[in-house]
Amino acid sequence: MEKKMRQDAETIIRSAIHSCLPDEAVKRALAERSFPGKVILVAIGKAAWRMAAAAWDTLGANEIDRGIVLTKYGHIGGPIGNLELHEAGHPVLDEATVTGTERALELIEGLEPEDTVLFLVSGGGSALFERPLVPLEELADINRQLLACGASIGEINTIRKRLSAVKGGRFAEQCQPAKILAVILSDVVGDRLDVIASGPAVPDASTAAEAEKIAAKYGLKLSKAAKALLKEETPKKLDHVETVVTGSVSELCRAAALEAEKMGYRPMILTDSLGCQAKEAGAFLGACACYQRAHAAEPTALIAGGETVVELTGNGLGGRNQELALAASEVIKGIEGIVIASAGSDGTDGPTDAAGGIADGSTAEILEKQGISISQVLKENDAYHALKCCDGLLITGPTGTNVNDVVTVLIRPKGFD
Amino acid sequence: MEKKMRQDAETIIRSAIHSCLPDEAVKRALAERSFPGKVILVAIGKAAWRMAAAAWDTLGANEIDRGIVLTKYGHIGGPIGNLELHEAGHPVLDEATVTGTERALELIEGLEPEDTVLFLVSGGGSALFERPLVPLEELADINRQLLACGASIGEINTIRKRLSAVKGGRFAEQCQPAKILAVILSDVVGDRLDVIASGPAVPDASTAAEAEKIAAKYGLKLSKAAKALLKEETPKKLDHVETVVTGSVSELCRAAALEAEKMGYRPMILTDSLGCQAKEAGAFLGACACYQRAHAAEPTALIAGGETVVELTGNGLGGRNQELALAASEVIKGIEGIVIASAGSDGTDGPTDAAGGIADGSTAEILEKQGISISQVLKENDAYHALKCCDGLLITGPTGTNVNDVVTVLIRPKGFD
Repeated sequence: MEKKMRQDAETIIRSAIHSCLPDEAVKRALAERSFPGKVILVAIGKAAWRMAAAAWDTLGANEIDRGIVLTKYGHIGGPIGNLELHEAGHPVLDEATVTGTERALELIEGLEPEDTVLFLVSGGGSALFERPLVPLEELADINRQLLACGASIGEINTIRKRLSAVKGGRFAEQCQPAKILAVILSDVVGDRLDVIASGPAVPDASTAAEAEKIAAKYGLKLSKAAKALLKEETPKKLDHVETVVTGSVSELCRAAALEAEKMGYRPMILTDSLGCQAKEAGAFLGACACYQRAHAAEPTALIAGGETVVELTGNGLGGRNQELALAASEVIKGIEGIVIASAGSDGTDGPTDAAGGIADGSTAEILEKQGISISQVLKENDAYHALKCCDGLLITGPTGTNVNDVVTVLIRPKGFD
Repeated sequence: MEKKMRQDAETIIRSAIHSCLPDEAVKRALAERSFPGKVILVAIGKAAWRMAAAAWDTLGANEIDRGIVLTKYGHIGGPIGNLELHEAGHPVLDEATVTGTERALELIEGLEPEDTVLFLVSGGGSALFERPLVPLEELADINRQLLACGASIGEINTIRKRLSAVKGGRFAEQCQPAKILAVILSDVVGDRLDVIASGPAVPDASTAAEAEKIAAKYGLKLSKAAKALLKEETPKKLDHVETVVTGSVSELCRAAALEAEKMGYRPMILTDSLGCQAKEAGAFLGACACYQRAHAAEPTALIAGGETVVELTGNGLGGRNQELALAASEVIKGIEGIVIASAGSDGTDGPTDAAGGIADGSTAEILEKQGISISQVLKENDAYHALKCCDGLLITGPTGTNVNDVVTVLIRPKGFD
């Protein structure tokens, strides 16, 4: 059993997840920055409190003048300096959303060009940060109409941005002349910036003409005020905004690669948008590992991130990361110098207490000796019990972040045996 | 449509296949070699005539003193210099096999240390090159016993090698004191040298003790002579043999990488032992391509070789390479700067006239416009007709070699648009 390399793989995965925790992501984004004027903090989304606390830890009262945290009910963990803390409804917005957002807009009034709005954005921000330009009831009604007529999510957003004082880049517009540093915690593979929290600080690519076309296409019933709003253009250029995307699966992969490099492995990120079947991804990565084992000039770490899918054909216990590792173990059976570890960054793989699975060349042999057939186990979706028999479960507990999965394949080439 | 890159991908694949033709493989193996003494050519297997002809073309009458070609009935294409041409039974050996092999053994008698036996080995060599140490009938009987009792292929070979004057390294032993240059054309993924043609010039890893154990385990009925033969050891060390493996899928990948490099792409071989589901391999490679598109520092070629499998869920027309390319097209839909081409080196992918498929970011869009659903096509295993609609079939015609499949993924990073 490749004990040292298994430890290395676990260390790489734990370190990658750690660096994608909201706190770490914010600290990293703010490191070595200086702010010439006042800093006003506006944190929105489900991770707003954690992000704001991390920003306060990093910058402190000397740097942060004032600010507000807008998060979901029950998500405030305690006071943070002089920041105002505000909870509201999610996933459906409520009156508290509007009052909280209005307070945030007050806080950014009257700023100077040298001032900075530190805008911390996490998932859920769309419901938690909103000041509608029509009454809440009308907004809800238009939303219902859009869902009922089968409009696409893109079409819905095009309409919604025009009925909001903050979405589609309009919040950023109101911060002027101050600069904005937006730190965005992304938890969806390939998510576009203008989609996360409906892009309050991102130029809007959709146009008023498109919005009117959509309204006509679906025959939306709109008030006169709403009709007028659809004609108003959203910002197309926001030069005063600097955006740092952090805590995405790309960052998870980069962090894994960095840690692998520190440990003496040449890192190679294969992809950060894995989306195929879990067990087939395992077979593919196993075949890649065999090639590196035979040909690599130095110890190598293959990294892949994303979210595979499990084909349900049985009633066993497992998760996509466990299936991936188990399927890979069959391909690398009996081969020394290879370890494959796959884990969900939230620490929970499928309905199990494991974050994922880890396998080496001995895994399939150990299972064979116990009379366990890997192909049968995969057919039953029962990777958890099989991996439990061969020290193949990765257990981290809940991690506090969720930026998809990361696979780390460590290879010691033959010349290094 | 990525016209230039599609042409590049086709060129890379054609060039890789060309370099794996038996003729090219032999020419490459013999290039820049000199032979101090006499050269005696012994070519065995289904490609023996082509390999011998290529060797004669390369070295000529000045270098080759004498030789023999042992191939399957109907596989002699015409005279080659002074070489003796000999046809025999395949897959079941016959008297002609034995007389041909005995003639080969006569030709290598009385050689000097500076002489070289040029030993050209291709698939089918096991039946076409054999001089049994027991009568043919007894050999056939032992073979039947071994198959009937369920012995593994490894066990069968352990017995068979001891009943042969040429298998298991024994041919090489008889060539002494002359040197041997063995050129082996491998057409099976991961095939071991001692398995191809039963390894006439490869040290045998199995032992006499193992052979006797197998005979006892299955209660083989053996003549006194055969029992005595099982006790005789096969060569364990053959320092006078130099082996060049050529025309394998590894070589196919290397050739593709080399050609890609010539064309200005940084080549990266991911694996030469691909074995997962065709469409999942396509999805995986598509995701790898997207990563390179976003992050690569220069135009890049990802290469993968092997043989994927097709899950049959429909009655359509297609092949594993076509399914791979089509599945990849869905992942790279709408993305510029990526071309994915996959082809079987024999020029025949599934029961079609295409060698494989080729796709770029426009492929899925073109199919969508025609109302064709890729997931539905894959469910029906009908990639051929879908690819035909979008200029996605690779047609080479039969190539004359069969060293599995090669996938070439070309990526132009964003910075090079």
